[in-house]
Amino acid sequence: MKLHDEIIAIGDRAVAAARELLLLSARRKNAILQSMADQIEARRPVLKEANRKDVEEAKSTGLSAAMIDRLLLTDGRIDSIVRGIRSIVGLKDPIGARISRWIRPNGLEIIKRRVPIGVIAIIYESRPNVTADTAVLCLKTSNAVILRGGKEAMNSNAAIADALVAGGKKHGLPDDAIQLIRTTDREAVRELVQMEGRVDLVIPRGGETLIRAVTEHARVPVIKHYKGVCHVYVDESADQEVAIKIAENAKCQRPAVCNAIEKLIVHEKIAEEFLPKMAARFRELGVELRGDEASRQIVPWIKEATEDDWYTEYLDLILAIKIVPSVKAAVDHINKYGSKHSDAIISEDETAQKLFVQEVDSAAVYVNASTRFTDGGEFGMGAEIGISTDKIHARGPMGLEELTTYKYVIHGRGQIRE
Amino acid sequence: MKLHDEIIAIGDRAVAAARELLLLSARRKNAILQSMADQIEARRPVLKEANRKDVEEAKSTGLSAAMIDRLLLTDGRIDSIVRGIRSIVGLKDPIGARISRWIRPNGLEIIKRRVPIGVIAIIYESRPNVTADTAVLCLKTSNAVILRGGKEAMNSNAAIADALVAGGKKHGLPDDAIQLIRTTDREAVRELVQMEGRVDLVIPRGGETLIRAVTEHARVPVIKHYKGVCHVYVDESADQEVAIKIAENAKCQRPAVCNAIEKLIVHEKIAEEFLPKMAARFRELGVELRGDEASRQIVPWIKEATEDDWYTEYLDLILAIKIVPSVKAAVDHINKYGSKHSDAIISEDETAQKLFVQEVDSAAVYVNASTRFTDGGEFGMGAEIGISTDKIHARGPMGLEELTTYKYVIHGRGQIRE
Repeated sequence: MKLHDEIIAIGDRAVAAARELLLLSARRKNAILQSMADQIEARRPVLKEANRKDVEEAKSTGLSAAMIDRLLLTDGRIDSIVRGIRSIVGLKDPIGARISRWIRPNGLEIIKRRVPIGVIAIIYESRPNVTADTAVLCLKTSNAVILRGGKEAMNSNAAIADALVAGGKKHGLPDDAIQLIRTTDREAVRELVQMEGRVDLVIPRGGETLIRAVTEHARVPVIKHYKGVCHVYVDESADQEVAIKIAENAKCQRPAVCNAIEKLIVHEKIAEEFLPKMAARFRELGVELRGDEASRQIVPWIKEATEDDWYTEYLDLILAIKIVPSVKAAVDHINKYGSKHSDAIISEDETAQKLFVQEVDSAAVYVNASTRFTDGGEFGMGAEIGISTDKIHARGPMGLEELTTYKYVIHGRGQIRE
Repeated sequence: MKLHDEIIAIGDRAVAAARELLLLSARRKNAILQSMADQIEARRPVLKEANRKDVEEAKSTGLSAAMIDRLLLTDGRIDSIVRGIRSIVGLKDPIGARISRWIRPNGLEIIKRRVPIGVIAIIYESRPNVTADTAVLCLKTSNAVILRGGKEAMNSNAAIADALVAGGKKHGLPDDAIQLIRTTDREAVRELVQMEGRVDLVIPRGGETLIRAVTEHARVPVIKHYKGVCHVYVDESADQEVAIKIAENAKCQRPAVCNAIEKLIVHEKIAEEFLPKMAARFRELGVELRGDEASRQIVPWIKEATEDDWYTEYLDLILAIKIVPSVKAAVDHINKYGSKHSDAIISEDETAQKLFVQEVDSAAVYVNASTRFTDGGEFGMGAEIGISTDKIHARGPMGLEELTTYKYVIHGRGQIRE
């Protein structure tokens, strides 16, 4: 009961802050952001000391080296947080913009205006930079934010949040516009996602367990930033040089991110020619290949893929390969096993391209380009809070506009409905 | 377990239908719609007979007269279903439209294209016309729909769904594009809203119990079409003739709908002059008035309002009245007790108007006009599936565009990420 009341109080404060945020001008918000960046700079030793505690604790509890690496706040990473905040200053403030305007025959003027969503809860894991990256995007869009980071990064997250608030306050950041939940009680997440009327949107960013906990209990809207089981399909009409270059880039340029590919699908008509070349290249690059029966008949050293492999996001130098008889079969496979994130067709045939683009049900569908471009920066949005794998409200990279909603403002001169 | 499997099978069929719907042209969909309207016409006696069964059953179980009225399929209502379907034909098909397009410095062409959401589940109560109204909007936007109506209207809903499917099939409606859940088991709703990967969006339309059942169990995105606790605020600067005309219209023109007002808020500086005139008018119109202490000191026959009154959607000729010291206090009241639907300020003062418009957190905010205009038709959308009281994806009247999402289609010439 105590936890419940505590989270409700955080919600109430966020609602009050959201109301105050409506009154901040774009210029004021930018001054707050600059001051936040200054404070992060100024508190670098404090941040590193807090982080040292987290890392020590993590080591003593036997966290994996990969997890500890994610947790680490190096000087370079602190620089990148500061740079990130300053880069948001230059982005266009979407709040208040007219999306559209029209006059009805009865003279009513209807304006569809872009407004903040209100209170956004972000639930995330390990990487402490997410605390700053998401908080500043919420501020730029005049949303109040409630942050709930991973237990293992609590000291680092708290130091970052404190710096942002201290910096922001100097230039008029409303109280409670940025709140970090500091209890490590796991029940806090459940309380948070059930606060209808206080939280307008929950964005979970993390692995399967986190996403499941959120969607199972949530009563407020959720936009999931979930896994990327991305595919490259090499059509019978593909330029094979292009296919090799793109598959290599999509798999290996940064294998641990969600827009890297996990599967390669190859048309049977070119498999015998293409697959040996492609497999040789992947072997050079140290990629473990797993494949279906047909692919293993062509390249015998490919390991056997199980049904589970098709669903799995390895985030590692592993790739599963499937041979299909048609572009339609490739689409069927992607829609069944994929995660609606990013998928590419390599093809010189317009009919095949068109079918793929129309029927693959993913946020980003590529023709002859690497899936690695699914990213707010690469799309030219300037920044992103994550990549939505949902279909409602926002799909793919979520930038500033995707952190807003709209309201209708209607001006009349006494009109009534007859 | 049997029910679970049954609902999963319905979901699987809907997913397959959604894929086929992607291939229908706008012209084909319109031919399907016309044929559906023809079938509803042709089956008028069948519809009325099915409805007679529902009404008889309702009478025998002692349903209220109001409920039975909602259930009734008169000739006029069947005409209106047919007219409704034919009117959708003339609306612009939003599917496939380019929302935006840009070229990145690396030459990638990014197109943000409007696409169907996929599979939409509609959960509703009593009125059988909702079966047709929502199914045809989903078809027009190439979404597969799973309908779950009220138990009391099952025969009528089934007759309407059968007519739509029979009519549609003649012109190429894919199998299972429109499915009605025919079991009356209440568990079916729970199964339906938990089908992640099969259902992309749930739209509940109904009362508190229905909405609560859906949001409590849902694991798929929900857009609520919930109550309208709407307000008219009469500012100290109001043109009082305009205020009386608008408050009367907003309360009385059709009191049982969600965009009718339930509360009247009056600035204290004009209350002594305005309220007696307004109250007298409402008395003539047979409106029961409930008020706070201040209003009852001005008009003694106003009944006492309880705290509950401020939250209540009467949907009847009842109105609660509150006196406030400022426009800010009016906004505070609306944001606390309202339902984020539609609220109006009557004011000649631009500063007050601006504050109200900026700070009232509702889908539609009016200046000097009746809240009754919050409606897809009145907004010029041509049709609506309902009025969203949520802030995510769609707010206010949901027309055809709000039943769509987007995907990014990216064309390259072998671009990879460096």
